[in-house]
Amino acid sequence: MTAPPHEAHPTSAGRALPDTQQGMRRRNLARVLHTVSAEGPLSRAAVASRIGLTRAAVSTLVDELIRSGLLEELGPERPGRVGRPGSALAVSGRGPAGIGAEVGVDHLAVCAVDLRGRVRARAERHGTNRGRSPGPVLGELGELVRRVLAETEAEGLWPAGLAVAVPGLVARDARTVVRAPNLDWHDTDLGPLLPVGCPLTVGNEANFGALAELWLGEGTPRDFLHVSAEIGIGAAIVVDGRLLHGTRGFAGELGHVPVRPDGPACACGGRGCLEQYAGEEAVLRAAGMEPGEGRVGLLAERAADGDEAVRRALREAGEALGIALTGAVNLLDPEVVVLGGALSELAPWLLSALREELARRTAGPACPVAVSRLGHEGPLLGAAHSVVRGVLDDPAAAAERA
Amino acid sequence: MTAPPHEAHPTSAGRALPDTQQGMRRRNLARVLHTVSAEGPLSRAAVASRIGLTRAAVSTLVDELIRSGLLEELGPERPGRVGRPGSALAVSGRGPAGIGAEVGVDHLAVCAVDLRGRVRARAERHGTNRGRSPGPVLGELGELVRRVLAETEAEGLWPAGLAVAVPGLVARDARTVVRAPNLDWHDTDLGPLLPVGCPLTVGNEANFGALAELWLGEGTPRDFLHVSAEIGIGAAIVVDGRLLHGTRGFAGELGHVPVRPDGPACACGGRGCLEQYAGEEAVLRAAGMEPGEGRVGLLAERAADGDEAVRRALREAGEALGIALTGAVNLLDPEVVVLGGALSELAPWLLSALREELARRTAGPACPVAVSRLGHEGPLLGAAHSVVRGVLDDPAAAAERA
Repeated sequence: MTAPPHEAHPTSAGRALPDTQQGMRRRNLARVLHTVSAEGPLSRAAVASRIGLTRAAVSTLVDELIRSGLLEELGPERPGRVGRPGSALAVSGRGPAGIGAEVGVDHLAVCAVDLRGRVRARAERHGTNRGRSPGPVLGELGELVRRVLAETEAEGLWPAGLAVAVPGLVARDARTVVRAPNLDWHDTDLGPLLPVGCPLTVGNEANFGALAELWLGEGTPRDFLHVSAEIGIGAAIVVDGRLLHGTRGFAGELGHVPVRPDGPACACGGRGCLEQYAGEEAVLRAAGMEPGEGRVGLLAERAADGDEAVRRALREAGEALGIALTGAVNLLDPEVVVLGGALSELAPWLLSALREELARRTAGPACPVAVSRLGHEGPLLGAAHSVVRGVLDDPAAAAERA
Repeated sequence: MTAPPHEAHPTSAGRALPDTQQGMRRRNLARVLHTVSAEGPLSRAAVASRIGLTRAAVSTLVDELIRSGLLEELGPERPGRVGRPGSALAVSGRGPAGIGAEVGVDHLAVCAVDLRGRVRARAERHGTNRGRSPGPVLGELGELVRRVLAETEAEGLWPAGLAVAVPGLVARDARTVVRAPNLDWHDTDLGPLLPVGCPLTVGNEANFGALAELWLGEGTPRDFLHVSAEIGIGAAIVVDGRLLHGTRGFAGELGHVPVRPDGPACACGGRGCLEQYAGEEAVLRAAGMEPGEGRVGLLAERAADGDEAVRRALREAGEALGIALTGAVNLLDPEVVVLGGALSELAPWLLSALREELARRTAGPACPVAVSRLGHEGPLLGAAHSVVRGVLDDPAAAAERA
């Protein structure tokens, strides 16, 4: 047997690093911080009982997290509880912040989120980025980042990292935009163009939107397919709470799943791809409208006003989405499909045709389809929260960078 | 933030169990055993240097693995090496064995594989199981299992578990066959029908076939899509060396991805599913042949003889596979697609149409398509090896059961 060490059985034996006292300490720091983040304020004793370590072990870990500025003590717990009063612990509102940024086709946005998940600062700029070269666009984004950083630092927070959502395919290095057709960017390393003095991660907007849904959505399960659209149509596959990236980082290209194999040619090289039926341009064309900025809002407005051509175009888009999603659901067996981004705005006129196709192509109960409440904010929030999650997952590393 | 504790960042902080000395010992036992399994024979010192633990720590772990019968000493290493001669360690050829079994539509098979990956015993029985009820079929399978167990026990091996591959959907309990259309089994718990005195796991044959490819294939990467066919068409998605199961355990239903949304009705409730173009029945019909046993071999024979109707039918099946796989590749971005089972036998007449469709529907380089060398043996070997892997992944648990 020469196969790589273990699979199928989800133990941790596969990790390359040896299991040491030091590694154990790091993981237990993460457990304590995650527990207080999810359920706090909590006493040391409550944390100990939740994670199954001794009170003494937890106290040592808590002291370290307080010294690093990741946890803070709120003072004695309110009386009335059984036992000696302990000091309640909460994640810090003055420690690290996650900086999220979004390069949209029609806008730029930046925000800062603290460990408690609150947005502490925000800046944005409207205007098309289509066809502009990366340098000037990222120069403007850098300005917004600096403005947000100045605000957060004035409140005693420090940036734990910057995550940038882009409408395109990002290489597995999490820095290089391989292809962003609607910006006309190709093989661009954003690293040198965004000198901001904290770790940088670049990711696909659909992926960050899905993570926002996972972390901030109400009752979102850990296995779902998130479908979003801005100009193109993208999907993100979340399996057991993790994004499926694909070998090159290109997974989730639902927009190029063939819907009608002999249909119109697509820029991807295929024919009859989903985007030829449900992409923004295709829908506008079917509705007899010109492409341009803010068209999704206009589509929603006209559909609400009862415009039959628009409603028919959206119904047909819903059917095509239903056909493509039938294939995706058969392959992935997700617990739910969530529509985000522009699709959530257009959902009232897409959903019934979409659900009908899914149902008539499925024996037994069809996969449920839900609509995201985060709307257009998903990618930006997902980016900022991904930095915050990084701190919760490895507080020791964040403390070293502080 | 109330989301479940962490995602996206692949730390181990998410595991429910606290990180304890005991857990660390178990994981380090697995590391030692995996290392010797993959690279042995090795001295204690060589193991220590490979996994980054001290020689003393490794010696303690090795002694425990020898006592449990999982490792054995081969005697002093051959001279000529630098330093004091150490005794070479190898995984035991007399310890636990993985018992694999397969319920095929036309056959039953059982085998035993030792920790070294060698097949130590094998039994099979031919004859159709189509439409037979589960009781008698599993009664016969139990007979084969007992025969294989008697042989392995005579050689000093003991059964660490039994894994059964079935041609159908298996619930996440890994015991209940939810639906096996070609056997006509529904909602059948195989547990009470296979009283064999060791832990039982039931899984889909396509999944076990993919695991065999992962573990035994030459140069198979850790991200791939395995497509196999017996009567139906199934796929297994392997991501970073692990099977993607789906919420209900139903992932990989490539056979029911719509290829032509207005095509013929399918038993699944859909229309124009891949099975309507590339399933065994559809191909036989297109080739003007009657359904029956051993038809795949007959198709291959006639295609090799130059039968034009058969070749055309296989070419059309290859085209349909190419269309469905274009969608799957866009969604999953695998490193390679591997054809297994009956598809590997028919590959010479499917492949060029399949690759052509993939290439003409993809801008840039298309996903490579390879053919499995395991052929029909994949599911049986994958089942047996999954038990062996379970021992390598948690030797302490296996030792407790010994």
